[in-house]
Amino acid sequence: MGRWQPEASARLQKAAIELFREQGYDQTTVADIAARAGLTARTFFRYFTDKREVLFGGSTLFQDHLVAALAAAPADTTPLDAVALALRAAGELLTDPQWSAQRQAVIDAHPELRERELIKMASLAAALGAGLRQRGVDDPQAGLAAEAGVAVFRVAFERWLSETRHRTLSEVLDESFGQLRALTAPAR
Amino acid sequence: MGRWQPEASARLQKAAIELFREQGYDQTTVADIAARAGLTARTFFRYFTDKREVLFGGSTLFQDHLVAALAAAPADTTPLDAVALALRAAGELLTDPQWSAQRQAVIDAHPELRERELIKMASLAAALGAGLRQRGVDDPQAGLAAEAGVAVFRVAFERWLSETRHRTLSEVLDESFGQLRALTAPAR
Repeated sequence: MGRWQPEASARLQKAAIELFREQGYDQTTVADIAARAGLTARTFFRYFTDKREVLFGGSTLFQDHLVAALAAAPADTTPLDAVALALRAAGELLTDPQWSAQRQAVIDAHPELRERELIKMASLAAALGAGLRQRGVDDPQAGLAAEAGVAVFRVAFERWLSETRHRTLSEVLDESFGQLRALTAPAR
Repeated sequence: MGRWQPEASARLQKAAIELFREQGYDQTTVADIAARAGLTARTFFRYFTDKREVLFGGSTLFQDHLVAALAAAPADTTPLDAVALALRAAGELLTDPQWSAQRQAVIDAHPELRERELIKMASLAAALGAGLRQRGVDDPQAGLAAEAGVAVFRVAFERWLSETRHRTLSEVLDESFGQLRALTAPAR
């Protein structure tokens, strides 16, 4: 092909999700995806290592943004506020709830992909914990803030996907962190 | 054999952990485990489906206790307190940090077992969330309290294993829930 195709990656992602949903993840080949997108398998491999990377390629970028935003948080930010700020910043990468919901439906239907997603979440928590320790936060506070932050992210992300009105993920995250604070406040 | 062997299950667990640590999980067979315990493979299969169940058989019991304790919590208990109470009750099943630490070392050394552990944790969170909804707690509070509770459990469990002085897991859990409350309290 050779010509410049700024949309190739997005077209491949869209084609892959359609096929995963229509005929199942296991039954879909890279050749199927490329054909649906009107591209060649060779073009596919310019953007993705394999069909799984169509679903999880963004996770690495997300984690990189998360770690960078945590490192950039003002020094006097509390551990949980720094985690919230970092998740909010990384969450700005997720701007398309329709795409995220379709991706999630494919993952939820497939045990191996669900495991992969759990591993990615555990990796986010580990990265947040390490970032907090670098900011001088000791354990158990670092581990707790990291794990609690990922817990809030899970819930906020699911909520964001289930909503029909169009809030940003950052707005839902802010609300969920507020709800965590309310849940953990002493009973009156 | 046929004679009454009240200690057979514990002997098999001990033998399995020893062998997993000495020669690796993949390299250890049920026959190896039975031989080390001075028992037959047939006796092994009276207690465990396979070698993985030696490590994860307790998880089902743990989750059952968790769900039962959550259901039994007084009606006026706040969602997070009910989760804390349930984790504390189930945590009383874990009385041997040496065994738990050895089990964890085997799991941490093996990607497939780590995935299995992540799935068990996700299953605990789902069970807690479902139990809270049955108690009339709505989402997102139910999901948040469940996920935050499991986050605290992860951190408390790891801490319990790393300590040399002998606190109970329940004591460490209480402390960790207190630390979560401190982390989420408004900055002064």
